Amino acid sequence: MSAEVRIIGVEHVPEARPGDDLAGLIAHGLEQSGLTLLEGDIVAVTQKLVSKAEGQLVDLREVEPSALARNWAARWGKDARQVEVVLREAQRIVRMANGLIIAETRHGFVCANAAVDASNVAGSEQVSLLPVDPDASAERIRRALSERYGVRIAVIVTDSFGRPWRKGIVNVAVGVAGMAPLLDYRGQYDEHGYELRATVIAVADEIASAAELVMGKLERRPVAVVRGYRVPPGAGSARDLVMEPERDLFR
Amino acid sequence: MSAEVRIIGVEHVPEARPGDDLAGLIAHGLEQSGLTLLEGDIVAVTQKLVSKAEGQLVDLREVEPSALARNWAARWGKDARQVEVVLREAQRIVRMANGLIIAETRHGFVCANAAVDASNVAGSEQVSLLPVDPDASAERIRRALSERYGVRIAVIVTDSFGRPWRKGIVNVAVGVAGMAPLLDYRGQYDEHGYELRATVIAVADEIASAAELVMGKLERRPVAVVRGYRVPPGAGSARDLVMEPERDLFR
Repeated sequence: MSAEVRIIGVEHVPEARPGDDLAGLIAHGLEQSGLTLLEGDIVAVTQKLVSKAEGQLVDLREVEPSALARNWAARWGKDARQVEVVLREAQRIVRMANGLIIAETRHGFVCANAAVDASNVAGSEQVSLLPVDPDASAERIRRALSERYGVRIAVIVTDSFGRPWRKGIVNVAVGVAGMAPLLDYRGQYDEHGYELRATVIAVADEIASAAELVMGKLERRPVAVVRGYRVPPGAGSARDLVMEPERDLFR
Repeated sequence: MSAEVRIIGVEHVPEARPGDDLAGLIAHGLEQSGLTLLEGDIVAVTQKLVSKAEGQLVDLREVEPSALARNWAARWGKDARQVEVVLREAQRIVRMANGLIIAETRHGFVCANAAVDASNVAGSEQVSLLPVDPDASAERIRRALSERYGVRIAVIVTDSFGRPWRKGIVNVAVGVAGMAPLLDYRGQYDEHGYELRATVIAVADEIASAAELVMGKLERRPVAVVRGYRVPPGAGSARDLVMEPERDLFR
């Protein structure tokens, strides 16, 4: 584990449009920022940038809300078409109360509104969805940037999720390539000889959170480079971060 | 918001004993590491270091388990004395199933085992508790280090918590001084003119997670300096991170 990690925000990444080459947009930002990629770097990319380039956008004017969506929207003062998109993105409703919909996406992530988001999308009538396969998105970016810069890197696609019991949202990893997202200390011993029996750290989520510190929500900085952290080896998948149903006490 | 944040692990922090001066231990580590503190730095300190210096340790040989603790321990293969300490630290049991106790501490934090922890404590018969008032602990460190180095800093006391739905633990803030732990974008507009209605970021938790990347669990690096991040102004309290019961769908 490294003694210093740098979190570098990448400026000048162009606005993404459906069909855009994501690695090309990121490389453009890196070059305009006077940056390159080094061996072992981790590139964190917001879900929003990825989803826009992949066309994972829904025009609300084309959405016909169900009775459930209309009722819920009327009761809580929401846009019925947006509620409809949330319900369509969900594969399971975890809670639906107090105007909040906590839902499980088809990827297995549990979050508010099944990760459907209206912010930072051009046009007030559009919302963004998660990428269809965020691991595959991360892997495509990883491969293209690795080739372009001639170095091994990891890529994390980030989104900001709320949590039970704690206020505020934090960035987490929804797509991972080129690293294992979990660092498993089980079976190792601390300096006092105590066996760490339950210590598995979600380092991909911690890296996503670290990246958020330079990304911001108002600046156009949808990419960050995390430098100096030795990632757990592995091909990696954000699905490794999803709790197995049988171990989950909060389904 | 900054374009680069550095996360610097502090080496050579001595092992803490009850009664030790925490700011002195941290300053010793900084000096031995060739580091100083700069205006605006955030010093992240593990709960374990703080709890040891504050004597928040329990000798299990002096604990008499209740019938509940004995039954639970027998059923799930746990140490009944440790279960007893968990039950005493809890002000509310959120879930008690599958050998797991998810409990609310007197500070309002919901986490496994009410944050009672056996790792990285000298002597196999000792466990550590959270500090009595982690905000006050953070404030004492902040004041002493600010005076010593003549700069304004913030301090975060960190612990690693599990989360529902996601595997692995991540570092979060359990004590905060010298900064607001939440960054509130509500009422501001993104670059597309969309009003950010629900965007409140738990930056203290993100900083705690970032700090974990250099702390590790096996190295003696219980302190990290986060440099280059402009903190939300405020006196700060980790209690601001605790979800109000009436908004919590997972009590």
